Parts: sequence; C-alpha cells; structure tokens
Amino acid sequence: MTTESHRAANETQIRTLIDDRTKAVRSKDSVRATSSIAPDILTFDVVNPLENIGSDASRKRAEEWFASFQGPISYETRDMNITAGDDVAFAHGLCHVSATMTDGGQQIDMWWRSTVCFRKIDEKWMVTHEHNSVPFDPKSGKASLDLEP
Amino acid sequence: MTTESHRAANETQIRTLIDDRTKAVRSKDSVRATSSIAPDILTFDVVNPLENIGSDASRKRAEEWFASFQGPISYETRDMNITAGDDVAFAHGLCHVSATMTDGGQQIDMWWRSTVCFRKIDEKWMVTHEHNSVPFDPKSGKASLDLEP
Repeated sequence: MTTESHRAANETQIRTLIDDRTKAVRSKDSVRATSSIAPDILTFDVVNPLENIGSDASRKRAEEWFASFQGPISYETRDMNITAGDDVAFAHGLCHVSATMTDGGQQIDMWWRSTVCFRKIDEKWMVTHEHNSVPFDPKSGKASLDLEP
Repeated sequence: MTTESHRAANETQIRTLIDDRTKAVRSKDSVRATSSIAPDILTFDVVNPLENIGSDASRKRAEEWFASFQGPISYETRDMNITAGDDVAFAHGLCHVSATMTDGGQQIDMWWRSTVCFRKIDEKWMVTHEHNSVPFDPKSGKASLDLEP
C-alpha cells in the first residue's frame, strides 16, 4: 500500500508538473508543454479525430494549437484533483482559455474538461494518457463551447 | 513499487469489473452498472452539463440513458488499456452503442472515448472519476457522432 508520506510527495510532484505545463501553455512553448509526455501516449483530444497515438502527434497538435492564436494565451486550470499511488496516478479538472484566433481575429473564451493519467517511469512521472473534451447538447448536436463552471 | 504479480492481479480485477459493467449496460441494469462507483465520483459525461458530482447523479444519468432506448442495447468496448498500481489505476478505450431511441424510433450507432479512474478502497476497486466524450469538428462546431475507429 502507498504510505501517506509517499502519497503526499507524489501528489506534490504531479502538481508541480501540471503547474509547469500551465506556464508552458501560457508562453506557447510546445517543447516544454509536452516534455513529460511518454512516447506511446494515447490522447483523446477536444477536436477530431477520435484518438491520437504517440508523443509526436501530441507535439504537432500543441504547435498547431499555439499557432492558431495571436499573441499571448490567457490559460488557467481549476479544481485540479490529484490521486497518486506509488507509480500510477491521475488528475482531473477544468481548463479555461481566453485568446484571439490568428484566422479572422475571433475572440475565444472556452472551458473544457481534462483528465491526465501518469505512470512513474525511471523515477519520473510521465503522462501516458490524456483526455480533453467538451460535452455536447443532444438536442442541437452542437459541442457546448460556452459552458462555465 | 508495485510488483509484477500484484500489478497483473490488479489488472485482472479491473478487467473483470469493466466486463461486468459492459454486461450490465447490455441488460440495462442501472444498479449493477453503477455498483462500483464511489459516492464522491466526479464524472465528465458525453452530453451536458460540464460535470456531474456524486454517485446519485451517475445512477440517475444511467437510468435516463437506458430509458432513452427501446428494447436491448448493442454495446461493446474496444482497445481497453488498463494501468494498475497497488491502489490507484486507470483504464481507457473506445465504447460503441447501437440501439433504437424511444422517442421517434431513430437508430443510433455511435463510438465514444472513455477514461475510467479507480482507487482501491477497503480492498475493493472503486471508480472515483470517469470521463466520456466525443470530439467535435471545429469548422462546423458539431459533435462528431459518426466517427469510427
């Protein structure tokens, strides 16, 4: 069983990793934002396709996403809940972006749900799975891009 | 560290739990389908709202979902990948439902992404977080309900 002191230390390590990713997103640094991603990560993203496999796909996606915004990104996470064992962990919470699109200058202000799953590999926590999404409205079939917590 | 034999035993327990949930969905048994859900579960669902808190909300949602279909549900999971430590685990894969809607008799045939997160509480694996979603098409703003793996 995971001892309480181990659990607390592991949770702190993961919170530090998530905080570092948050800062990397704000500065549109795709290398830093994806530095803790395992080579064989499987990602379910907010937009199509159904799934993305591998860290190269994640890095390309981060680069494209950052390039889709003019200037800085206002980005925050909220209610990030972390559950850590000795070598397996997961975190879930809400993410919020507010930024100006490169194409057309449209302002976006959007919340989505994020689940991030980790394995400790060679003493370092790595993201092996990530799931980001918005729900949809079954009446209209539209993705719900304007929900707020 | 989690030993290999412990890891294998835990993975088997979680696969059994997921298989049991699959059977419960097929028989539209909401009690059995939600029997491994922790009281304080936080769920990100395929449809609105942004999040649901607590097992009562999950049970109500399962009942409503089952009632929205006429007769039996054809339901399968695919590529269910399980990562288990001593007392923390997660699983991710794709889910497929094919069924006839109660209202209007419309046939639905849909794949979605599922991430299920577990804690071992009093020697029993419990679902403390679940994230189900479809991605959306950024051009149309529509949820992608017709993607196939």
